[in-house]
Amino acid sequence: MARVVVDVMLKPEILDPQGQAVANALPRLGVNDVSSVRIGRRIEIEFAAEPDLDRAREIADKLLANPVIEDFTIHVHQDATAEVA
Amino acid sequence: MARVVVDVMLKPEILDPQGQAVANALPRLGVNDVSSVRIGRRIEIEFAAEPDLDRAREIADKLLANPVIEDFTIHVHQDATAEVA
Repeated sequence: MARVVVDVMLKPEILDPQGQAVANALPRLGVNDVSSVRIGRRIEIEFAAEPDLDRAREIADKLLANPVIEDFTIHVHQDATAEVA
Repeated sequence: MARVVVDVMLKPEILDPQGQAVANALPRLGVNDVSSVRIGRRIEIEFAAEPDLDRAREIADKLLANPVIEDFTIHVHQDATAEVA
């Protein structure tokens, strides 16, 4: 099964009140070395056959992201990344 | 500036109506080879100094994810990935 991941984030110049709320809560957890938090969306698209980046880009552009305020990046998901639990 | 990315996704056994709605809309765009769409959150945490994965994991666990219904993965953001615009 082939999985394409679309990451949608607010453009840097757009305010992110949700991320700001998390950043403001961090000192209460004893975390003082975080300079900013931004919250966006991660969409995992499973293709029945080969992953199709062009198709995924069309889906992201038309359905998933608002190009006025959001940027998106697309990549094929690799299981063997340096991710940790 | 060091950036840690936390990806929060619903556990596989939890229904995702938002992703299902996107998947159901795809045939109207002429896309018929997508088997599923799951929508989660991507949180970018900028550390003022070194990225701290343990600290990020604590933040994710306490503030960002609901461990009853969500899984999260943490990784340090690398700019030189195979991402495309």
